Amino acid sequence: MMYDESRAPVFTLTSGPVDAYPEVLRALGRTVLYDYDPAFQAFYENVALKAQKAMRTGAPPLILQGEPVMALEGAAASLIAREDVVLNLASGVYGKGFGYWAARYAKKVEEIEVPYDSAIDPEQVRAFLKAHPEIAVVCVCHHDTPSGTLNDIEAIGAIAAEAGALLLVDAVSSWAGMPTSAAASQAAVYVTGPNKCLGCPPALSLVAVSDAAWAKIEANPDAPFASMLSFTDWRHAWKKTEPFPFTPSVSEINGLDAALDRYLEEGPEAVWARHALTARICREGIKAMGIELWPIREEIASPTTTAVRMPEGIDAGTVLASARARYGVSMSAGRSETLGKLVRIGHMGPTAQPAYALVAIAAIGGALKSAGAQVDVPAGLAAAQAVWDAAIDQ
Amino acid sequence: MMYDESRAPVFTLTSGPVDAYPEVLRALGRTVLYDYDPAFQAFYENVALKAQKAMRTGAPPLILQGEPVMALEGAAASLIAREDVVLNLASGVYGKGFGYWAARYAKKVEEIEVPYDSAIDPEQVRAFLKAHPEIAVVCVCHHDTPSGTLNDIEAIGAIAAEAGALLLVDAVSSWAGMPTSAAASQAAVYVTGPNKCLGCPPALSLVAVSDAAWAKIEANPDAPFASMLSFTDWRHAWKKTEPFPFTPSVSEINGLDAALDRYLEEGPEAVWARHALTARICREGIKAMGIELWPIREEIASPTTTAVRMPEGIDAGTVLASARARYGVSMSAGRSETLGKLVRIGHMGPTAQPAYALVAIAAIGGALKSAGAQVDVPAGLAAAQAVWDAAIDQ
Amino acid sequence: MMYDESRAPVFTLTSGPVDAYPEVLRALGRTVLYDYDPAFQAFYENVALKAQKAMRTGAPPLILQGEPVMALEGAAASLIAREDVVLNLASGVYGKGFGYWAARYAKKVEEIEVPYDSAIDPEQVRAFLKAHPEIAVVCVCHHDTPSGTLNDIEAIGAIAAEAGALLLVDAVSSWAGMPTSAAASQAAVYVTGPNKCLGCPPALSLVAVSDAAWAKIEANPDAPFASMLSFTDWRHAWKKTEPFPFTPSVSEINGLDAALDRYLEEGPEAVWARHALTARICREGIKAMGIELWPIREEIASPTTTAVRMPEGIDAGTVLASARARYGVSMSAGRSETLGKLVRIGHMGPTAQPAYALVAIAAIGGALKSAGAQVDVPAGLAAAQAVWDAAIDQ
Amino acid sequence: MMYDESRAPVFTLTSGPVDAYPEVLRALGRTVLYDYDPAFQAFYENVALKAQKAMRTGAPPLILQGEPVMALEGAAASLIAREDVVLNLASGVYGKGFGYWAARYAKKVEEIEVPYDSAIDPEQVRAFLKAHPEIAVVCVCHHDTPSGTLNDIEAIGAIAAEAGALLLVDAVSSWAGMPTSAAASQAAVYVTGPNKCLGCPPALSLVAVSDAAWAKIEANPDAPFASMLSFTDWRHAWKKTEPFPFTPSVSEINGLDAALDRYLEEGPEAVWARHALTARICREGIKAMGIELWPIREEIASPTTTAVRMPEGIDAGTVLASARARYGVSMSAGRSETLGKLVRIGHMGPTAQPAYALVAIAAIGGALKSAGAQVDVPAGLAAAQAVWDAAIDQ
Repeated sequence: MMYDESRAPVFTLTSGPVDAYPEVLRALGRTVLYDYDPAFQAFYENVALKAQKAMRTGAPPLILQGEPVMALEGAAASLIAREDVVLNLASGVYGKGFGYWAARYAKKVEEIEVPYDSAIDPEQVRAFLKAHPEIAVVCVCHHDTPSGTLNDIEAIGAIAAEAGALLLVDAVSSWAGMPTSAAASQAAVYVTGPNKCLGCPPALSLVAVSDAAWAKIEANPDAPFASMLSFTDWRHAWKKTEPFPFTPSVSEINGLDAALDRYLEEGPEAVWARHALTARICREGIKAMGIELWPIREEIASPTTTAVRMPEGIDAGTVLASARARYGVSMSAGRSETLGKLVRIGHMGPTAQPAYALVAIAAIGGALKSAGAQVDVPAGLAAAQAVWDAAIDQ
Repeated sequence: MMYDESRAPVFTLTSGPVDAYPEVLRALGRTVLYDYDPAFQAFYENVALKAQKAMRTGAPPLILQGEPVMALEGAAASLIAREDVVLNLASGVYGKGFGYWAARYAKKVEEIEVPYDSAIDPEQVRAFLKAHPEIAVVCVCHHDTPSGTLNDIEAIGAIAAEAGALLLVDAVSSWAGMPTSAAASQAAVYVTGPNKCLGCPPALSLVAVSDAAWAKIEANPDAPFASMLSFTDWRHAWKKTEPFPFTPSVSEINGLDAALDRYLEEGPEAVWARHALTARICREGIKAMGIELWPIREEIASPTTTAVRMPEGIDAGTVLASARARYGVSMSAGRSETLGKLVRIGHMGPTAQPAYALVAIAAIGGALKSAGAQVDVPAGLAAAQAVWDAAIDQ
Repeated sequence: MMYDESRAPVFTLTSGPVDAYPEVLRALGRTVLYDYDPAFQAFYENVALKAQKAMRTGAPPLILQGEPVMALEGAAASLIAREDVVLNLASGVYGKGFGYWAARYAKKVEEIEVPYDSAIDPEQVRAFLKAHPEIAVVCVCHHDTPSGTLNDIEAIGAIAAEAGALLLVDAVSSWAGMPTSAAASQAAVYVTGPNKCLGCPPALSLVAVSDAAWAKIEANPDAPFASMLSFTDWRHAWKKTEPFPFTPSVSEINGLDAALDRYLEEGPEAVWARHALTARICREGIKAMGIELWPIREEIASPTTTAVRMPEGIDAGTVLASARARYGVSMSAGRSETLGKLVRIGHMGPTAQPAYALVAIAAIGGALKSAGAQVDVPAGLAAAQAVWDAAIDQ
Repeated sequence: MMYDESRAPVFTLTSGPVDAYPEVLRALGRTVLYDYDPAFQAFYENVALKAQKAMRTGAPPLILQGEPVMALEGAAASLIAREDVVLNLASGVYGKGFGYWAARYAKKVEEIEVPYDSAIDPEQVRAFLKAHPEIAVVCVCHHDTPSGTLNDIEAIGAIAAEAGALLLVDAVSSWAGMPTSAAASQAAVYVTGPNKCLGCPPALSLVAVSDAAWAKIEANPDAPFASMLSFTDWRHAWKKTEPFPFTPSVSEINGLDAALDRYLEEGPEAVWARHALTARICREGIKAMGIELWPIREEIASPTTTAVRMPEGIDAGTVLASARARYGVSMSAGRSETLGKLVRIGHMGPTAQPAYALVAIAAIGGALKSAGAQVDVPAGLAAAQAVWDAAIDQ
C-alpha cells in the first residue's frame, strides 16, 4: 500500500503551511461582512485587541493583509532609512535573505554570518556593535526555519539596546510556539504571523512596532505609504472609527479570531509546553535511530521544527518523497543552502502533539531506511515513547 | 423593530466585500496543504488553468497573494518604467488614484480627467495620443466602483493599440459580472480579482499580462522582484514544477477553486445576464421612486453597482445608517470625492439576483424617506417588479 | 431569465425544512466526538441544559434522535395506554393525522374536527370533556402547518387540566417562533424540534414531558422501551454520567448547540417579534394584492407560516412551479386535503425577516399573475412596505 | 503534560462514532434545501443511486432517517411475522441483543450462542436448520462490535438459503471497511449505515432488502407503516417523483453524498485494503507487546476494530481513562458482558490508516503499563512498524 501523490497526504507535519485548527477552518467560512459595516469594524478592533493580548504588547499589533513575507519586506522598507548602517545577522537562509532586503534600503549592510547549523553568538554581536557604533538597526531571525535553529534574541536584543541600535526580529515561526515576545527581546519591530504556531492558513502578518520604531518610520521619507507594504497606512486601522487603507482579508481575519480565542483559552504556556515536548520527543527519537539533528548543538534546536540531517549519501528529496509515498506523511524540505541536506518536521499548532512525533519518527525513519541509510527505527520509537512517558509521569 | 449595528446585517448588498457563495465559504475550510506537497502543487496548477478558462486568456493569469490593490500597485511598479510618459484616464476616485501610483514610477503622467459621474470619451483619448506620441502606457479603470460608472475599455484599447501604447486596465469590479476580457480590450495588463463578481472574499488578485507587457516588465530594471509586489516572481509559479516565491494563501486558493468551478458551471454568459438584469431592475426602481442615478448617462451605469445620487440636502451617511438600522441592509458609501454624495448598491456574485434589487429599493427608498427625501417607494417597487416580469416573459 | 429546477433555488421560503442559520451550518461541521468521550458527555449535558433554558421547562427536555415525527409517534405510543379514551382535535392535516397514531394505542379515539381553514373552539372542547369525563388524553396541534393556522393551546390546556385530562401538544412549527411553552399550555407532553423556528436542519426532536406524564408513561406497560421510539430510554441520557441507549446524532447535536446559543443570545422575545412582524407584513401584502389568506380569520394565522388561498381556478402546483422558475423562490405546497388549494410561505428562523416577506410577495404575486389570477402585485408590495415602515417607526 | 477530559481528545480512535472525513464535515454545512424542492428531490435520488453503487445492490438501498439501530429495530418489526420461528445467532452483545427484538415479533426465537470472544460455527447453523425446518428467519451480526469479532456471513447465508430461511444481517460496522455485501451473503435484509467505515456522523441507516424480503414484508400485516420504523413507507421515497413519508435529515444526506463520492473515488478495494492493513498492524503490535487480543482466533478479528483483552487484574476503564489523559487518545470500551474486559481500537473511515495503529499502540501500551500491566511497548511499536514496512515493500 502506497500513497498516491495526486491525493492529499494523511498527515501534514511540515514547518508551514501547517494544517489549521478545525475551529479556524470553520471560522474561515463565516459570512463575509462588508469591511465598513459597523459590525465588522467593531469585530476587527476586537480581533486586534485579542492579538495584543496574545502577543503581550502594549498596543494592538499591526495586522497586514499578506503572509509574513509582506511584513518583513515592509519592515525593511519602513524601518531602514537610506542613511542607515545595518547589521544583519545570518545563521540561516531566512536571516541571510533578509540582508538583501536590508541592502535595498540601507546605506550599508554589515553582516555576521555563521554556518547554517549554528547560531549567532551574542558576544560577537556585542563586539561588532562596539566596533561599529554607527549601526542603527540590527536584524535577526529568531527561528531560521530552513535550519530549525534558534538565535538568542533576548540576549541580542539587550546588546542592541545597550548599543542604541534598533532590533528588527523575524519571529514568524517561533512566536506562539515558545516563550517569546517583542518586549522580552526589546524589539523595535517584531514580525510574526498567525500561519505557523497559531494554526491559521498563510495570508496575514502580525507586527509589534515599538514607539521608537514608529518614530523612526514616521520620520523616514522613504517609508512606504499608499502601498501594500506600508506600515503607516495600517497603523490606526484597527480602530473601529478609522478607515481601512484598502480592503482587509475578511475571511482570514475571521480565522485569526478563532485562532486567538483558542490560543488564549488553551493558555499560551500550555501551548508552548506541548510544542516543546513534541520537539523533544522527536529529537530523542531521531537521535536514538542513529541519525543526527541538523543543529550543531541541541540547545539551539527549535521547539517548532526538528531539522534532521541527512546521512552521507542520502538525498533529502528521496527521503521526503518516500515518507509521503510509503507513510502518507508530508514533511518539509530545506531551502537554498539547506535544500537536499536536511528534512524538517514541523511541530506547529495542531501538530504540536507528542503522538505526531511518533508518526514522524516512523515515517522519516522508514524513509531513511528505504533510501539506504543505517537507521534503527525501533530504537527511535522506543526512545520517543520513553521521553513522552517520562514527561507525563513527571 | 430596528437592527442593532453590533450584529451582522441581514443583507450585505455592497460593492465589495460581498458575501461569498456558500460553496466558496465551505471551500475555505478545506484541509490546508503544505504548499510544496505534490498534491497542492498539482491543485494550484489546476486552479490557474481554470482561471485561464474563466478569464479567457491565452495563458494562466498571475495569481497574486493579496487583494487587487496589490496587483494594481505591482502593475504600476512593473509595467511603468522610469522613462515612460503615461496617460492616466480619470473618471472617478479609483482611476484618479491610479495616477498617483503611475507618477511614482513614470517620468511624467499626463491625465484626462472628467467629472466623476461621467466617462472618458474615447475620441478625446485618440486626440490626446495623436498629440502625444511619446505616451507609452495608458491607464484606465473599467468600472470606477466609487462612482458605479463604466469606461469603454474596448474602444480605448483599440485606440491605444493603434497608437502603440500599452493599456493597463483595472477591471477589478467588472470582470466576471459583465462581458469583458483582457483580449477584448487589448490590454497589456488587466487586473482583476475573485473578490467581487466571482463571489470570493478579498485576498487574491488575478492579472492577465500580455506578451508585450511581459517583455516590457522583464526589461524594466526597476520592476519589483523578490517582493510581494513582483509580477516576475510569480510568473511561472502556477506550474506544478516551479517553486513558489513565497507562501501562497492556501485557503484563499481553495476558495478560488470553488468559485471558478461555480462560474464555469453556471456559465459566464448566464452569470453576466443576471448581473445585468439585477442592475437594470434596480435602476428602474430607483428612477421610478423619483431619485436620480449617479451616472450622468445610464449607458455608463455599471451592471455590478448601482450608484444612487443623494437628493439635495440629504446626507448619504444618514441614508446608509438608516437602511441598515431600519431594514438590516448594508450598502456601500462613496469614497473621497463621491463620499456623502451617493449610496452604492452592489450586484456582485451571489447578490446579483433580481430579488435583491427589490430588497435594495425598499431599503434605500425607506431610508431616503426617513431622511426627509421626497420619494415614492411603492412606485419604485412596482417599476422594479415590472422590469423583472418583462425580462422573464421575454 | 428563468431559474433551472436542477439547481438550488435562490431563496427557500418554505415552512420547513428551512435553511439553517449560518452558525448552525458551520457547527454541523465540528469534529465528531465519540459519544462516550467525557468531553462529549459533558457537552451533551450542556446542550440539554441550554434546551431547558430555551424551552423554559423545569428539567431538560428529551432530545430524540429523529425529526419531530419520531417524537410524535413516540408520544402517542408512550402516553396513550390501551385503556385510554382520547380526544383528538383536528383542525388540519397534522392534527387529523395524529388521530391515527392515537387510535393505534388507545381504546377509543373521539374527535372534534373543524374545517381545515379554521381553529378548534375551546368552548367546544370544554363541552365535550364535560360530556365525556372518561377522556384521559387530549391531543392538539398548535400550528397545523399545512393550513398555517393556530389553535389556542393555552385555553385548551386550561380546559383539559380542569377536566383532569392530559394534554399532548404538537408545537413543532410554532415553538421558538412565537410565545409558547409547555408550561403556558399546561401540556403533559409538548413536542417540538429544532428544525423549524430554531433554524436547524431536520433530524432531532425536543420534548417537554411533565411529571404527571412521566408517571403515566412509566406505568404504561406498552410504552416503548429498547426502541427508537422510546421516551423512557432517553429520559436520563442527558446526564453526563448516564449512558446513551443508542448513539446520538452527534453532528446534529453540534448544530443544536449553536442554534440554542443564537436563540438565547438574540433573545426569544426578539426572535418572536421578527417572526410576528414578517408574517404580518406578508399577510398585509397578500391581502392588498387582492388575494385571500387561507385561514378563515386572521387571528388564527400563524406567525411562522402564511398560507395563501388559491383563487378559483388557479392550481397551487402551477403557482409554486412558477414562483420557483420565474423568481428563484421555493415555497411550500399544502398537504393532503390542503394540497393544491394553498401555497405556504414560511417565516422560520433565518427567513423570519421582513425583507423576505417582500420577496415572497413579489414571487407569489408574479406567479399568480402568470397563472392567470387577478392580482395587483404593486399594491401588495406597497402595503407590505407600509406595514414594515409603520412597525419601524412605532 | 496530561490531557484534560473537558477538552476534546487529540485522536478519536474508537469503534464509532468516528470522526468524519473532512469533506463530509464540510458537506454537512451545505445549504439546507426544502425536501420537496425539485433540486433536492433529484439530489436525493442521485444519492440513493450512489449508495446502490457503493453497496453493489440491484436497487437503491433504503435510507432510513436514524442511526442503524433504527433500521435494525425496523428490520425485526418488518421482516419477522407473528407466526415466524426465528434463529438468532449470538456471538456477542449486539447479536444477543437482536434476539430481544426478534422475540418481540416472532412466535418463537431459537438461539445459538457462543462465547463472546468466538464466532458462530456455520456447521452448527446447518445442523440446527436441518433439525428445525420451521425456521423462517436467521439473524446474525457480521461484526459484533463490542467484541471486535466477525461471523462468516457468507457461509451462514449459503446455509440459510439452502434451508429456505431468510437471512437478516447486521453489517453496520463491517460494511465499507471490508469485502462484504448483501449479495455475497445472500441476505434478505442487510442493515448498515454510513456512520462507521464510510466516515459519516451517526444519523442514517442504509438497508439492502431483497425481493423475497420485500414480498414477506409487504405481506406482513404487522409490519410498521406510517412509522419512523417502517421500511415500506420509505421503499420508493428515493425516486424524485415520490413523496417522502416524513422529512428526511437533509444535512445528513448532504454528508452521505460526500462520503459516497469519496468512497467510490478512492475505490472500495483500496478502502478495504487500508482497513485490513491498519488492523493487522495494530494486532501485531498488541501481540508483540505481550498483550492478547480479545478474539480467541485471529481469523475472526475484525479489520475495522481491534479488541484488546485486558490482562488479569487490569480494569479496562482505568486503561481507557489513562490513554485519554496521558496520550489524548479516545478509544472504545466494551458493552455489557464485554465491558471492563477489553478495550477497542477502531479502524474506521478516516482512522483506518496505519499511522493511527502506531498511535493506538503507544497509547494503549502506555496506559496498560501505567495501570500496572506487564507490557513491552517498544516491542509493540517495532512489530507494528515492521508489518507496515513489509506491507509497503510487498
